[in-house]
Amino acid sequence: MAQVIMDKRDVEFVLHEQLEVEKLAKHERFAEFTKKTVDLIIAEARNLAVKEMLPVLRIADEEGCKLENGTVRVPESFHRIYELFKEGEWISLCDDPKWGGQGMPTSVSMAVKNYFHGANFPFTLAILLSHGAGKLVENFGTEKQKNLFLKKMYTGEWSGTMLLTEPQAGSDVGALTATAVKNADGTYSITGNKIFISSGEHDLVENIIHPVLARLEGAPPGTSGISLFLVPKIWVNDDGSLGEFNDVVCTGIEEKMGIHGSPTCSLTLGGKGKCRGTLLGEENKGMRAMFVMMNEARLDVGMQGLGCSSASFQNSLNYARERVQSRHLTASGKDAPPVPIIQHPDVRRMLLSMKTCTEASRSILYYIGYCEDMIHISSDPAEKARYQGLIDLLIPIAKGYVTDRAFEVCSMGIQVYGGYGYTKEYPQEQYLRDCKITHIYEGTNGIQAMDLLGRKLGLNKGQPFRDLLAEIRQTIATAKNISGLEGLAGKMETAAAELEKTAAFIGKMAASEKAMTAYSHAYAFMDVTGDAVMAWMLLWRATVAGKKLQAGAKGKDAVFYEGQIAGARFYINTVLPITRGKMDVINAADSTVVDIAEDAFGGK
Amino acid sequence: MAQVIMDKRDVEFVLHEQLEVEKLAKHERFAEFTKKTVDLIIAEARNLAVKEMLPVLRIADEEGCKLENGTVRVPESFHRIYELFKEGEWISLCDDPKWGGQGMPTSVSMAVKNYFHGANFPFTLAILLSHGAGKLVENFGTEKQKNLFLKKMYTGEWSGTMLLTEPQAGSDVGALTATAVKNADGTYSITGNKIFISSGEHDLVENIIHPVLARLEGAPPGTSGISLFLVPKIWVNDDGSLGEFNDVVCTGIEEKMGIHGSPTCSLTLGGKGKCRGTLLGEENKGMRAMFVMMNEARLDVGMQGLGCSSASFQNSLNYARERVQSRHLTASGKDAPPVPIIQHPDVRRMLLSMKTCTEASRSILYYIGYCEDMIHISSDPAEKARYQGLIDLLIPIAKGYVTDRAFEVCSMGIQVYGGYGYTKEYPQEQYLRDCKITHIYEGTNGIQAMDLLGRKLGLNKGQPFRDLLAEIRQTIATAKNISGLEGLAGKMETAAAELEKTAAFIGKMAASEKAMTAYSHAYAFMDVTGDAVMAWMLLWRATVAGKKLQAGAKGKDAVFYEGQIAGARFYINTVLPITRGKMDVINAADSTVVDIAEDAFGGK
Repeated sequence: MAQVIMDKRDVEFVLHEQLEVEKLAKHERFAEFTKKTVDLIIAEARNLAVKEMLPVLRIADEEGCKLENGTVRVPESFHRIYELFKEGEWISLCDDPKWGGQGMPTSVSMAVKNYFHGANFPFTLAILLSHGAGKLVENFGTEKQKNLFLKKMYTGEWSGTMLLTEPQAGSDVGALTATAVKNADGTYSITGNKIFISSGEHDLVENIIHPVLARLEGAPPGTSGISLFLVPKIWVNDDGSLGEFNDVVCTGIEEKMGIHGSPTCSLTLGGKGKCRGTLLGEENKGMRAMFVMMNEARLDVGMQGLGCSSASFQNSLNYARERVQSRHLTASGKDAPPVPIIQHPDVRRMLLSMKTCTEASRSILYYIGYCEDMIHISSDPAEKARYQGLIDLLIPIAKGYVTDRAFEVCSMGIQVYGGYGYTKEYPQEQYLRDCKITHIYEGTNGIQAMDLLGRKLGLNKGQPFRDLLAEIRQTIATAKNISGLEGLAGKMETAAAELEKTAAFIGKMAASEKAMTAYSHAYAFMDVTGDAVMAWMLLWRATVAGKKLQAGAKGKDAVFYEGQIAGARFYINTVLPITRGKMDVINAADSTVVDIAEDAFGGK
Repeated sequence: MAQVIMDKRDVEFVLHEQLEVEKLAKHERFAEFTKKTVDLIIAEARNLAVKEMLPVLRIADEEGCKLENGTVRVPESFHRIYELFKEGEWISLCDDPKWGGQGMPTSVSMAVKNYFHGANFPFTLAILLSHGAGKLVENFGTEKQKNLFLKKMYTGEWSGTMLLTEPQAGSDVGALTATAVKNADGTYSITGNKIFISSGEHDLVENIIHPVLARLEGAPPGTSGISLFLVPKIWVNDDGSLGEFNDVVCTGIEEKMGIHGSPTCSLTLGGKGKCRGTLLGEENKGMRAMFVMMNEARLDVGMQGLGCSSASFQNSLNYARERVQSRHLTASGKDAPPVPIIQHPDVRRMLLSMKTCTEASRSILYYIGYCEDMIHISSDPAEKARYQGLIDLLIPIAKGYVTDRAFEVCSMGIQVYGGYGYTKEYPQEQYLRDCKITHIYEGTNGIQAMDLLGRKLGLNKGQPFRDLLAEIRQTIATAKNISGLEGLAGKMETAAAELEKTAAFIGKMAASEKAMTAYSHAYAFMDVTGDAVMAWMLLWRATVAGKKLQAGAKGKDAVFYEGQIAGARFYINTVLPITRGKMDVINAADSTVVDIAEDAFGGK
């Protein structure tokens, strides 16, 4: 039977053949996560995704969220799924079991999240945020804060959020004006208005814990004067019992293009002067704390994009195999029968684009999870640092680049369906609408491009970027020894060298008086880096597949491996030449974007 | 004050400075369309668009259409606008005044439509279809049919549709099964089910006239057995009075991603055996008749895309000038004030991409209208044929390529707004949702790419393509003589030569045993041809601007012209190198898309 959400075989391929996650089980931390256990986890996640989450995707989109008397009602069906998530302990996949986590490898959790997001991203979004908020408590909380909040957050009894954005402080978090005043009892009185708060208020749980960025009286301006506070919706007494309503009022929810099942709230804190919080971490170091959570949050957004594109691709593939329309291009005679549209060249082009894009993105995201795991099991500080550097470098790609590609896949996912794709009878249009938010929150994709060029490229004097190139070159070296992959390896080698040169060029320009011009090409630089990383992942996949074929893989396996090699060939031969064009553009450093007079944009 | 929908100055520039449409008034047919009259028409269209159509864009999206007891109710506000359209005679802009048309140049009508689509594409869509249906009657109808229907359709008293698609016959129109049986009185009894019929049923008018594609008993299979019939919703008696309900029943309307104000209907014809029609044109020549209308319909879809992108860009530009966020990249010191986001390099990059994309697309579409006008006023058959060839060649670009770019512009239009762009508080998300349909109907963009490669490139032994290159080279020659444009002209010359070579290569491959591979690159070929045409239009604009600057243009005009030159520079320097990469891909003719085994796509 045709699969939904994504290709089971491909998930297994990445986990077991590309990343070989069962090797992680050799280490104490992950000892129980043998191949058998991992497969069981994935099978259960798929089961939950396919049987419970996917069937309510559309109805929740229609139903949306409703604000009534300060209470937000999420789609009815989400209550049932939420209970299943709590029962199955799906909320804190990788965290310390001491606090209710599952302790699984991050790489494995990526596959779980891939299914959940593909099945129902608006629902899953709420879960992620709870986890992220919990992680802040785990990392920066006092023992008291942890005891009061953490387990309840990680097990889903309570949920969590992130309160950063204010109407005048979006990308510029440092412009926020929410204030905190210390009280005699050590708590802080919080006042402010926050917007765009995902799951800021809802009816799935009895209490919501808000990490809030605010400014202490007399704190310096900008980001260095921001502190982080833990502000529960309902006050939590020292014995863990619930106290009074804590004056966190939902004043509105956004009408949005997509993710209708996820309430995006405006919250007023301390409107009646009765909102209290406790300091999380140190005074004026709130931004630093938030940054620690940034990688996880941005990786999750990349996964949201991949969830949408995975499912959109799988649907299109199934549809293209079933939908019969028009005769074969090379058929002779008017009586030739119509064929399934997967036989038409332009449909195949779309499907192969979608396949390579989702598969390469999958490898990138799972690989980042794998790097996280390696940090945990490695005892060598240098190796830990190397993996952390790779993660830091790849995060803007995982968030900015992967979601851009995911959106394109979702758009093609509509095209394959033709007119039907535009209707709500099929899920394709929702995947596109939902996917669009991934370009925006947790730092717009433009911000990701600036992060890559401005922070990550030069990190530790460029070591992570050199490490990335070394990883790519290791795959190239392997590929050169596999019959049939030599040519692709050679092309990838050229691309890596060109990327290295381009990175050096734009990095230097960014630090020069031509910084404005450099940053006007930051997006292009994210694009070409992403393209190269995608090509690397596909070549890596092809080397694994090539070895298996050489070893005599047969039947379905052989077909799958041939598909991997075809994917690498398609991408390296039809995408990388365009990447080279983009690198030529960067290296030519045209400054028109900077030079053009503001009025010359027109429209006044 | 900031303009909305689009830049008035740019519209005037294309009409009066690039295309010099006032020269058309030297010819009898367009004698009354002097510059003054043209400006008056545009001003009135803008007025209607800004004051009446735009304010109800969002509310109509929310309201949508409702099917109740077989009757479709369109958004309430559309009734008022429809009356204004009838009163102002905005429905048949270019047609013979004898039948209620305005007789204006098509080039001028493009500007009018640009405003209407930018202000309210879901509403304007209904008007276009009425016009297209009328055009079929004008071109293929008998005198009796014209007298009974045409004036009422062109003046909006009745509306019209197009009934092609059936559930199993989408892109493959030839697979349709609706049938027609000749009656003794010369009418035909029609039976069939049609889907995806825009404005197939609605409450704006008392009668709807459906041109219907159906098969006569015993007709050959495929497209050569299809005839065209005129089927009114309510029978029209020979004296013009309305007779009985003609058994055309709306059985459902689609829930869609966008264009909610436009009802997309499923219609059952002759469910009770009482649906009659009259033959329009000749038996079995229905497809040929439809093809005659195809160019206009596809050009209109391109204009729908441009309407969305024009408005999205203009909104983003206005927003970027007002929204203050983050300090300037080169500001020193933490106390530097935040600046309007138009000063940030990545925002500028998006705005300049959006500007060049909408402006070049505008020039393409208006230019196609201009070619239409030249056919009308030319007395030289060779010149007429040349313009017709250019139109035929450019139509797939106008529909397929322009709408692809428009969608990208609309997506950036959300990005510029950040989180706000995703909310329904601003129109940006609707423009993206509405725009997506333009990739699908009137032949998907994949079909456009096949049309360009399979029909248009080799049309008349390639003469139109050579004519296009000649036009481009004429602009290059002009640009070479303008100080400051020599370098851009040289780059454009190289691009034109590469396009010529690529076209020859893929054209030959399409006619060879490698046709499947050629068609798997058809989309890329549409892309590169479109890129080159865009660059040509921007260079053409720059030559006009350069001459005006040389002649001493000052003040606001000079700023506008500098903007034109910057646009050409930006596009030629930052897009054409990528186009070259795409051409390299085509010329390498990778066949992986064709070669990969169907099962190797995975997911089974």
